[in-house]
Formats: sequence, structure tokens, C-alpha cells
Amino acid sequence: MRDPLDIAPILSAVREVLADVPRPIALHEPSFGDREQEYVTECIRTGRVSSVGEFVDRFEEALARYTGARHAILTVNGTAALHIALLMAGVRPDDEVIIPALTFVATANAVRYCAAVPHFADSDERTLGIDPSKLATHLSRIAELRGGRCINRETGRRIAAVVPMHTFGHPVDMDPLLELCRQYELPIVEDAAESLGSRYAGRHTGSMGLLGVLSFNGNKIVTTGGGGAVLTNDAALARATKHATTTAKVLHPWEFLHDQVGYNYRMPNLNAALGCAQLERLPVFLKAKRALALRYADAFSGVPGVLLFSECPKVTSNYWLNAMILDREHAEARDRIIEAFHAEGIHVRPAWTPMPRLPMYESCPAMNLATAESLFARMINLPSSAHLERV
Amino acid sequence: MRDPLDIAPILSAVREVLADVPRPIALHEPSFGDREQEYVTECIRTGRVSSVGEFVDRFEEALARYTGARHAILTVNGTAALHIALLMAGVRPDDEVIIPALTFVATANAVRYCAAVPHFADSDERTLGIDPSKLATHLSRIAELRGGRCINRETGRRIAAVVPMHTFGHPVDMDPLLELCRQYELPIVEDAAESLGSRYAGRHTGSMGLLGVLSFNGNKIVTTGGGGAVLTNDAALARATKHATTTAKVLHPWEFLHDQVGYNYRMPNLNAALGCAQLERLPVFLKAKRALALRYADAFSGVPGVLLFSECPKVTSNYWLNAMILDREHAEARDRIIEAFHAEGIHVRPAWTPMPRLPMYESCPAMNLATAESLFARMINLPSSAHLERV
Repeated sequence: MRDPLDIAPILSAVREVLADVPRPIALHEPSFGDREQEYVTECIRTGRVSSVGEFVDRFEEALARYTGARHAILTVNGTAALHIALLMAGVRPDDEVIIPALTFVATANAVRYCAAVPHFADSDERTLGIDPSKLATHLSRIAELRGGRCINRETGRRIAAVVPMHTFGHPVDMDPLLELCRQYELPIVEDAAESLGSRYAGRHTGSMGLLGVLSFNGNKIVTTGGGGAVLTNDAALARATKHATTTAKVLHPWEFLHDQVGYNYRMPNLNAALGCAQLERLPVFLKAKRALALRYADAFSGVPGVLLFSECPKVTSNYWLNAMILDREHAEARDRIIEAFHAEGIHVRPAWTPMPRLPMYESCPAMNLATAESLFARMINLPSSAHLERV
Repeated sequence: MRDPLDIAPILSAVREVLADVPRPIALHEPSFGDREQEYVTECIRTGRVSSVGEFVDRFEEALARYTGARHAILTVNGTAALHIALLMAGVRPDDEVIIPALTFVATANAVRYCAAVPHFADSDERTLGIDPSKLATHLSRIAELRGGRCINRETGRRIAAVVPMHTFGHPVDMDPLLELCRQYELPIVEDAAESLGSRYAGRHTGSMGLLGVLSFNGNKIVTTGGGGAVLTNDAALARATKHATTTAKVLHPWEFLHDQVGYNYRMPNLNAALGCAQLERLPVFLKAKRALALRYADAFSGVPGVLLFSECPKVTSNYWLNAMILDREHAEARDRIIEAFHAEGIHVRPAWTPMPRLPMYESCPAMNLATAESLFARMINLPSSAHLERV
């Protein structure tokens, strides 16, 4: 067995980046200014704080413009957006949905809300997201097309969709994944909850699949308190998404007619007002976060036993959360490092526990998850708020 | 056939009440003042707009104090609160849940989210809610207790819960319903979405069943933009509700462990800030709405063919929405009256389409719904915003 890693140089590297910041330092905090106060004050003044209002329309239009998706439909949070996007992609009870093992639990939960079964895919060490090449090998072993339906031969269930999640803002390698999914006739629902502002070969994350999902939770690069959005280039899916998220009410001047089991998944106008202001400042946030990532990279260069994750060629990451990755032989140091940072008021965290380790997902189908497990054992997220950098 | 009703006196009665109000007049609008602006501004200033924050705790404590329920757990809206409350009451897939036929579609949808089946109950003309006496007759015909489980003999399914909804703020006749449900060992989940401020024999609506549900949608007496709450007197259920609504995350300083399929149903702190301010003004809203209801009652007294609905003995209604009810022989006049009001910019509306008329609920079990159907055909809600009255 090797000697344990000396973690002092790692602590020093982070202290150097965060030298002038008063403790405690959160993992990620939003930045608000006068514009946020102004829009929210205006929203309350008009009395239109709820499901219909000017800011909802404005925020949807601004998101579509910014991401290049033809349509954006606001939702009450990213989990609701995932649920509806999966339904819109055609996920039905007892289908399987391929999602990364290494993701926030909402990705898997949304599959369960459809009464479908998550099927876990391994990660790519270069992107932290689904590995298209390993997935291709896996599908070639277990899946076959039968009359346009992709069937998992081992379980007999239909595989209904693939959900790449852009981890910490870093885009999945989409081109080979898009090609693979075309081959198996699988729709893609991009979980871009963490990657507003991130692009892959110029295309915004969430705009490349059949549908995409954004989140504006309080810890995201842009926040509405709680909120999310569904992105799509398909006008019919956009209409169906709006309908399903607004109790499936049929337009009528006064009658209450609903034509299917709908959801109350609308984002309130109050939250959209905050979103409009935040989105205007996104370019500044992106610039700050990129500068912060560069400073972390500088500070970590030459520190033994660890790598600061940085974007791949072809992509522009929003660097939502910076991540350091310990060398394979130093995974044992992860919890020591986390504890040392917490002790000095620097909030860091490991990646999410891989889904198959959670009791409700332990018996779901999965491919070999060696890389996801290895990344989980070795990754630590570092404080990454935009306001940590003056730009 | 009788002569059609002369609707001119009805129009005059409403015009008299709304004499000085500029058109158009909405059915229900919120009232915001300086306190709302102050709390929301403060919330943004602290940066804590999302799922954890001081206003969430304050609003939960204030709601528990106000309603007399031991615990209040905030949710993202009333529909989410209904869904979780039904799960907490033990509703499982393929169970039946007794709900009124005459309700907003969310009550039925929440049952479907549990993969259970709504079973529709008739209304009581004196309360507009579930009729306990008709339900008793119905249950005596179709239900039986087998080993502590209430079974619908006709469908073979378990009846898992009863959901009285306090229509337009008017409390259901709870004492006989509580007694009936005790007899059949059925938990009650009160849908008090419309009845914040309404009491039955001194007890607040939502606090009498095993669980209760509030809504703070934009059209409610108190609004948070979108929002809701679960009420319960049971500490274990309160803890389980909080857990299920916050992704079922297990407490740990950094690890992501979740022990069941959870939901992202938290109310953001930003919305709770608005709720804190609104709840402080609830006594004023209640006074205004009671005064407005009295003025409507005055104006309608002596108008032929119609009755203004007013609270029963034993209850104090919040008079969320005033309702006029046409005599049975004048149901044909309903749409004429609605159109006439709309033409002069007074927004009125009929009651909700009874659930079994909606395509997704047409084949659900139901008792005879004669009163619900009759009320639906004859009721019109009138503008009822608190700000229509100076108090």
C-alpha cells in the first residue's frame, strides 16, 4: 500500500484562490443586484405574481433566444421539467430510461414518476457525463430494434429514452451520443439542469436532444428561487408541454374543461421576474466563473495526486461547479480533504452517491459502472460562486 | 315550460355592489402592500431565495399557529401538497379515494399521481361540499370492512381515504363525516385549498382530518405566487412529509444519501417571504370579504330566481368566492348571465365541470351525483377580491 497523500498542498491551493474571502464560504451562492429587486418589486406592484404574467412570457422568450432552442416552457423546478420532458418523449409505465449512474437523484426520480425504470450508464472520465462509446458497446450486447422499438433483451422492457446529464456544467460528448441514439431510434432528453451557458460545438446544452431541461434552483448559475424549463425545437411538443404543465385546461372564456391528467407545474410570475433579471447578468456570471476556474487550475498545477477538471476541446463549459479529481491511488484521501476544508469553513462536497447505491435504485438494470464509481470515490467540488471573482 | 328568467335584476344587484369599481373586474385578485415588498426585498438582499431560509420556517410556524394544526409543511403548490398528503395517508396504487365530483381538477389529478382511482361523491346543497349523509348511504351499499381495510365490493379495490373539499371557502359538515370515516376506518385528507381562515365549530379547516392541504395560488385569499402547505397534528407524519417533499435526503454534512423516491416539492424562500406578509394581513382580508358577502346578500335579497350562498350555522366561512345559485327551474339562465357580465367587464364564472364529465375520469366509480350536477348547472361565482371592500 502506498503512503497516504499529503493533503497540505491541496488545502494551500484552495486557500490561495479564496485568500480574501471571509469564512464560511458556501459551495455556490447566487448573486443579486438592483435589477433583481427592481423586477420583483414591479411584479408585486402589478399584482400578477402567479401563473400568468409578463415575466413568464419574457423569461421564456429570453431563454429560447439565449439557448437557440425554438421554444422554452417554464416550470416550477427542474425536477418537474424532467418529469414532463420524459412524458413528452414518450416514456410510459414499465419502460426503461437510460440515465447516468452519477447524477443528482432527481434524474432517476423523474423516471420513477413516469412509472418507468432507470437503467444506469457509466461515465466518461473526460466529460464526467455518459460515455457514448461504452453505451454503444452495452447496447450492442443487450438491445435490439424490433419494429422501431428498442428492446432490452435481458429485461424484455422497451428502452424509451436516453438522458445525458451535463455534469457540473460540462457538456457530454453529444455527437457520438446523437449518432448512437439515431441508430437505436432513441429520443434524447438532455438534463441541462447544471449547464445553462454551456455549449457543445457551438450548440447550447439542452437544445440538441428532442427535449432539454434547465434548472434555476438556488444553487444554479441563474436562480429563480425554485424553477426550471423545458427546451425543444418541436412546436407540437412545446404546445403539449405547456398544456400538460398547466393542468391540461382547454381554452375557453369560462368553462373548466381539462382533457387529460395534467400537472400544476407552472413557474409563478414572481419567480420568473427574478429569472429575467438573472439571465441579463448571465454573461457576467460566465466570465467570472471562467476566471475562477482558471485561477483554480493555476493554483492546482503542480500539486501532486490531484487534477482540476477542465473542459474538453469542442465545448465551452459554464464551470458551474469546479471539481478536483484525486488520482486513482489516492481516493482514500477524499473524506480527509472534505473534513479539513469544512473545519476551516470552506464548503466542499463529494459528487452524488451513484444511483445504484441508493436503496430504491439498487435493483435497476445497469451497465458496468467502473468509471462512475471511480469518479465518485475521487471527486470533490470546490466553492464556485460567481461573486468569488471580481470581473 | 316556464318563461325564461328575467336576468336584469341579477345584473343590477351585482352592479350595485360593484358600483364604484373600474372595469374590468377580475374574479379574484390579491392585495399587496408595503409589507410584501419589504419582506421580498429583504429575502433577495440576504441571497436566500431558494429552498432553505428564514421565511420558510417563519411561514410554517405562523400557519401552524394560525390554523391550530400542530405542524405545517410548505410545498411548491396546493396540488403538490395534495399528492404528498394522499401518499402520507397511505394511498397506494390501485386504491380508491373518495373525493367530491364538484371540485377543481387538482383533487382528482393528485389521486392519479398516486396511481389510485378517484371515487366521486355527491354534494350537500347546504355546504357545497361532500354530503356525509348521502356518502353514508352509499358506503352502506358498496363498502365493507375486511380486517381493518375498507373494500369497495363492486370493484374489489380498497378505499384508502376520503378528501372533503371546502368549496369556495365554505366548510364541509365535518362532524358527521368524521364519525362516518371513523366507522369505516378511513383517513380524511381535507382539501382546504380554498378555505384558509374558515372554521367549523371553531376548528380551522384542514386541521380536523389526519392531514389537510392549503393553497396559496394567485387566486387564493393569501398568495405566495404559487404555493401550498400540508397540515397535520401528527409529528411522525409531519417529519415524513418534510422528508418526502425535500428529495428524501438523509441528513449528513456532505453525503448525498436519499432513502426513498422523493419529490422536489419545497416552497422557495422567496415565495414564503410573500406568504409571511400576506398572512399578517389575513384578518383584514377576512373582514373585507365578509363585508362584501353581506353586501352581495343585501343586494340579492328579493331578486327572484336566485339565492346568494351563505355560510351554515356552526361555521365561519372565509367567503373566498361568493356564489349565486339559480333556482332549479332557471338553470338555463346560467350562461346568459355569465355572458352578460363578461360583456360589461365583470368576470364571473361557473363552478368546475364535475369530474366524471372529463374524459380521463368518466369511467371512475361514483355515487349518484344529482346534487353536484344540479349545483354545477346553477352556480355562478362573483368577483370577490378583498380590495373590493374598504375596511
